[in-house]
Amino acid sequence: MKDQALDGKTVIIRLELEASKAHFSKVVSAIEEAGGDTIAIDVIQTNRESTIRDLTVKVTEAVNIGRISKALEALPGVRIVNTSDRTFLLHLGGKITVQPKTPIQNRDDLSRVYTPEVARVCTAIHEDPSKAFSLTIKRNTVAVVSDGSAVLGLGNIGPQAAMPVMEGKAMLFKQFADVDAFPICLDTQDTEAIISICKAIAPAFGGINLEDISSPRCFEIEQRLREELDIPVFHDDQHGTAVVLYAGLLNALRLTGKRLTDARIVVCGIGAAGTACTKMLLAGGARHVLGVDREGILTADKEYEHPMWNWYARSTNPERLGGGLAEALKGADVFIGLSAGGILKRGHIQSMNADPIVFAMANPEPEIRPEEAEDLVAVFATGRSDYPNQINNVLCFPGIFRGALDCRATTINEAMKLAAAEAIASTVGEDELSRMYIIPSVFNQRVVEEVRRRVVQAARESGVARRNTR
Amino acid sequence: MKDQALDGKTVIIRLELEASKAHFSKVVSAIEEAGGDTIAIDVIQTNRESTIRDLTVKVTEAVNIGRISKALEALPGVRIVNTSDRTFLLHLGGKITVQPKTPIQNRDDLSRVYTPEVARVCTAIHEDPSKAFSLTIKRNTVAVVSDGSAVLGLGNIGPQAAMPVMEGKAMLFKQFADVDAFPICLDTQDTEAIISICKAIAPAFGGINLEDISSPRCFEIEQRLREELDIPVFHDDQHGTAVVLYAGLLNALRLTGKRLTDARIVVCGIGAAGTACTKMLLAGGARHVLGVDREGILTADKEYEHPMWNWYARSTNPERLGGGLAEALKGADVFIGLSAGGILKRGHIQSMNADPIVFAMANPEPEIRPEEAEDLVAVFATGRSDYPNQINNVLCFPGIFRGALDCRATTINEAMKLAAAEAIASTVGEDELSRMYIIPSVFNQRVVEEVRRRVVQAARESGVARRNTR
Repeated sequence: MKDQALDGKTVIIRLELEASKAHFSKVVSAIEEAGGDTIAIDVIQTNRESTIRDLTVKVTEAVNIGRISKALEALPGVRIVNTSDRTFLLHLGGKITVQPKTPIQNRDDLSRVYTPEVARVCTAIHEDPSKAFSLTIKRNTVAVVSDGSAVLGLGNIGPQAAMPVMEGKAMLFKQFADVDAFPICLDTQDTEAIISICKAIAPAFGGINLEDISSPRCFEIEQRLREELDIPVFHDDQHGTAVVLYAGLLNALRLTGKRLTDARIVVCGIGAAGTACTKMLLAGGARHVLGVDREGILTADKEYEHPMWNWYARSTNPERLGGGLAEALKGADVFIGLSAGGILKRGHIQSMNADPIVFAMANPEPEIRPEEAEDLVAVFATGRSDYPNQINNVLCFPGIFRGALDCRATTINEAMKLAAAEAIASTVGEDELSRMYIIPSVFNQRVVEEVRRRVVQAARESGVARRNTR
Repeated sequence: MKDQALDGKTVIIRLELEASKAHFSKVVSAIEEAGGDTIAIDVIQTNRESTIRDLTVKVTEAVNIGRISKALEALPGVRIVNTSDRTFLLHLGGKITVQPKTPIQNRDDLSRVYTPEVARVCTAIHEDPSKAFSLTIKRNTVAVVSDGSAVLGLGNIGPQAAMPVMEGKAMLFKQFADVDAFPICLDTQDTEAIISICKAIAPAFGGINLEDISSPRCFEIEQRLREELDIPVFHDDQHGTAVVLYAGLLNALRLTGKRLTDARIVVCGIGAAGTACTKMLLAGGARHVLGVDREGILTADKEYEHPMWNWYARSTNPERLGGGLAEALKGADVFIGLSAGGILKRGHIQSMNADPIVFAMANPEPEIRPEEAEDLVAVFATGRSDYPNQINNVLCFPGIFRGALDCRATTINEAMKLAAAEAIASTVGEDELSRMYIIPSVFNQRVVEEVRRRVVQAARESGVARRNTR
């Protein structure tokens, strides 16, 4: 692990100290002088000649870890075995494990969970396939499928490099909603291949969470799978973002006394998330939505290469406004940015309606930094955890899948997504709501349960639940 | 669960007892009179009007559970809510779960296992794909892939009904060798589709265990995947059976003082397992092998429809013997049956060489019952757990994959399989070896470690290990 990127905040330095030459106190002072703070020491191995110790060292962002290494290497009898940061250590060997629910301790156990008795369970499912939900992992298991084509801000890094994200997602599913999720990272970026693989692996799963698949392929893959499978298929980058953003917007409108039906909303960046977000706004009753992308305001007066943009232009902008971002924002109530860092200027915000709402979601660098805009806006939200009002998918996907699995929904439809958004918004009480708190924390334990409850209700009311539950 | 098949040995009967009418002592006597034995009682719910209790009742094979139900229903104030047997209860909700290795307790944890810090780990793998082994689940994770076309003795029951077997397999992988295994049951039986799906999902896995895929497709699927992937692909029905059978045979030969190179061996049933078994015998040095199937002894004098049979005929039977099972067995030292129940007769065994070795592996009904043959044979083995000398795949697959994963083997080759068989055989000590004990119990904890150790060694010596380990 010697050669990892080391910009983290805690590093673990494994040292070999020659007993006759090294002085441990000098090691600690050398680290301190180089700007590090030794916060833990573990002795890994020791004998007469030498000791191996792991030092957990806190470093400030500014300090170059190389300075510490150099200082240590200059000490007599000290050898750096390796240097790892905590993030990499957490990933060693992967982040998830597959566990039996019951131990197999004797022949009787073995004969029940495996041959010969398991044959009776297989036969029962063969005779009545709906029993797969009760007698296999299907009822609690989601596939997290990616082709690694649009991973975080990293782009097309492929399936192996995408695995840490998908494993992380599986951890979150379990931790927040007790959903068993397993990462399926595909070594193909062919739309038809991905569709047919998802269909083929579906029998074991109660749902499919598509993740980090690039646009426009993500649209067709999701749409086809929704049509061809009887379990929920949910592209989180589109709908997870849309649900949480919509939840935040509901509360921002509540706070500013504006109404969704009247609000003039500009969506900037019409990719997967921007489109999904707009669909939710329209389903929720918004009537004045404008989409802006590289070619300016999308309008039905023009023909676009991207089929989704043509759909978008026809479904929004009823007044067929032309122009760019500046024109779109004049008199607007809401800016929703899913585009690129730094493109929104103070002048843009000053041209908006009174009490403007700005959701600057570009990652890692928002369309405008909160500190540049906070004196101008009524509400400001970003995708980042180091500012207030973080629009974070983690608020949605665990609860929405928990609900869908619990009622054995055949799909996750618009009604369920709206219900999830309303549930998230509702966990911020009337007395708690403020411009610094329009959206709950991801660690708010009420969120999952509330999302689950309302999603189940919406699934039942819209007729897609296969099982009666509350 | 009311309508499950109920031929198990323990059933759980959930009863609702009306407080004013029912007498619990009468319930217990009614069960006893109908041939059941109440071994545990759990009160599930109780109020003034009624009580719900789960009764665990042991029944003998002969007793019809219906008799107990009828007796209970005849009692006043007693209602059977449902009846479940323990095997089905063990399967409720599936048998495995996906667990995070570390909890996500706060924002700091979240930022390390997921965005933003996970991006550094993704980047490290993108820059050096071999790091997938250290930084993802790949190094400890195996896909258990089936299309449900040849499940146990049940045949082509499809992917959903195959899941309980694959989940059971995943449990065994974890329990016996700490391997994380995940079931992938495919809703396709197309050879090319299965090959391309396995290739596409491979990035996340350190190995693929093919399971219960029917012959002859299993041959092509395995061969192609072995050629086209750089991780081990192992069809357990072929090679797991072959390895354990070969291990048992080594000890049977040791016990009878016969030598593999001289022994006349008849393999009856030339399907997937019979072929793999024969390949191991040949790799181990056997020179006198005859294969027998529906068309009699396979001989190079004939042309067969099944390509594998032509390969088989050319690779065995150097004397080009003709005839059927009776002819094949005259003067043979070893009978290996992977065919059908009851086809081996006492007369066949009486025509064999002195100290005949009989492995009657057909399941559930062996080629001949041990009690019919034990006075004639030197050693008798079956696939069943209720007779001595059970040839059970569980002795092989956990350890062989543990070894392959530990040394990051690119494949599981003949040398590794032979090493695994020798390791299994070696766990029966010279002083322990007897006609009733030629193969260790699946619960013998030395087996996995010994198999692992020798497999790693064989992988290194044959140049397929990517990592130096012991």
